Amino acid sequence: MISVLAQPGANILLPRPGFPMYESRTTFSELEVRYFDLVPERGWEADLESVKAIADENTVAMLIINPSNPCGSVYSHDHLAQIAETAGELGILIIADEVYDHLAFGSKPFIPMGVFGKTVPVITLGAISKRWLVPGWRLGWIATCDPNGILKETKIDQSIQNYINITSDPATFIQGAVPQIIANTKEEYFNKILDLLRNSADLCYGKIKDIRGITCPHKPEGSMFVMAKLDLSFLDGFSDDIDFCCRLAKEESVIVLPGTALGMKDWVRITFAIDLPSLEDGLERLKSFCERHAKVKA
Amino acid sequence: MISVLAQPGANILLPRPGFPMYESRTTFSELEVRYFDLVPERGWEADLESVKAIADENTVAMLIINPSNPCGSVYSHDHLAQIAETAGELGILIIADEVYDHLAFGSKPFIPMGVFGKTVPVITLGAISKRWLVPGWRLGWIATCDPNGILKETKIDQSIQNYINITSDPATFIQGAVPQIIANTKEEYFNKILDLLRNSADLCYGKIKDIRGITCPHKPEGSMFVMAKLDLSFLDGFSDDIDFCCRLAKEESVIVLPGTALGMKDWVRITFAIDLPSLEDGLERLKSFCERHAKVKA
Repeated sequence: MISVLAQPGANILLPRPGFPMYESRTTFSELEVRYFDLVPERGWEADLESVKAIADENTVAMLIINPSNPCGSVYSHDHLAQIAETAGELGILIIADEVYDHLAFGSKPFIPMGVFGKTVPVITLGAISKRWLVPGWRLGWIATCDPNGILKETKIDQSIQNYINITSDPATFIQGAVPQIIANTKEEYFNKILDLLRNSADLCYGKIKDIRGITCPHKPEGSMFVMAKLDLSFLDGFSDDIDFCCRLAKEESVIVLPGTALGMKDWVRITFAIDLPSLEDGLERLKSFCERHAKVKA
Repeated sequence: MISVLAQPGANILLPRPGFPMYESRTTFSELEVRYFDLVPERGWEADLESVKAIADENTVAMLIINPSNPCGSVYSHDHLAQIAETAGELGILIIADEVYDHLAFGSKPFIPMGVFGKTVPVITLGAISKRWLVPGWRLGWIATCDPNGILKETKIDQSIQNYINITSDPATFIQGAVPQIIANTKEEYFNKILDLLRNSADLCYGKIKDIRGITCPHKPEGSMFVMAKLDLSFLDGFSDDIDFCCRLAKEESVIVLPGTALGMKDWVRITFAIDLPSLEDGLERLKSFCERHAKVKA
């Protein structure tokens, strides 16, 4: 997608925090990156004022990841409508990364961005492996939602097809297996996964509340991640989130992703797609780590 | 590989006939393509005089496909040494596409280009699916043969690693299966495949000799393809190889690749990796097609 949109002088709007692969690909394609903020106090909604502020006539697209990696948020119909309105006014298209489309387990239903295709052209990215919680199948798709034919007119749809012709397809036997997998997976299987994620998210959110030095501003409602903020003033001798994560891994064998990798210094991303006892154990270790390194009160 | 080498003004030397994906990727990366010829009368050896003629100070690399897709040739030690010498003199590196490395079934053994790494830096491309005749596993590798450390010094090896970081890996369970596949496949299996290919190549070469209007200048010794030349002056009313292939597909349900796709107008590429009865049937159909469309003698 990024390769198709890259042209001299063009820029693209990416969310912060975001998924680092987008920045790598964008930089590689010499497409300028501009970041708009996701606001933790508003359930990681996009700050649309900042979107308007950073866009200009060379902006080609904005990226929305919903349900969100790394935030675990799911956007409401209203917020998606506002995003579509904003992009429509700016005359840019929306890339909707919806690989976690079926992993919304909170109170809000998942709503595809494509619903707003009449307001703004939407290019949706999907993948099969997330819903089955089996990483590494490496099979995804690109769908365009463009009833007004803008992508056709600007030949962006043709460019996408041309690019796909020079990239390697997913392994043939995965392609062959997909129809069986889709047809034969029972609803209970998906429900079980959603229950697991819902319980894990609850456990994770609840446990983090108990840990001094870490706060979680928004309970996850989708995907398999949550962002939590480090308050290093409560902790002793950590230079930053990377230092925190390295020592946590070394001392407790617990791996969390430093927020710096996602554009959010002194935050961490916690993955909760794991069986409950292991998750509980990991969070206990995180807690004792923070207690051990808490500043001694005077 | 192509993306790593692309830089403004640079050019790369590709063989003609060649594999069209290289041209697509090269053009996409805005790297200039220059073609050197493979000479059918010399067993599709590279015309090294033409290599010297087209290279200049902006040439970064030359590509060698051995065993050859689409020619079915396997290069001798002497010819590979000459290629290495030439590239060394020109100060360019060699990309050795050796995905058919284990599919040499003729009199000449396959010799890896990396043997000549002291003369010239070699970047070898390998893949697992060809040896097992199972297309679509989508797992390959890049190896550098560079005892003089030139790729390290010029940071090309680091660029390759960086690029691999932003491309998707092969499906994880194929990665997981590979050690088992390699460890547990018996020698007989490979021998059987080589016997099949050798017999198919013999049959193919022998049958084509019998067909008026098609000639095959070189008996295939590797890979699963052979190039054959159309002599349209013996045939009635074909505008070119594409026309020939389209009508052959329509009238006889036999699919061969028009040489134009490989840079060789009025040639065709025939794939012989198929069971003998089907191959024989296909070649019979090709023969009757040519006979039916032969020019009536005055």
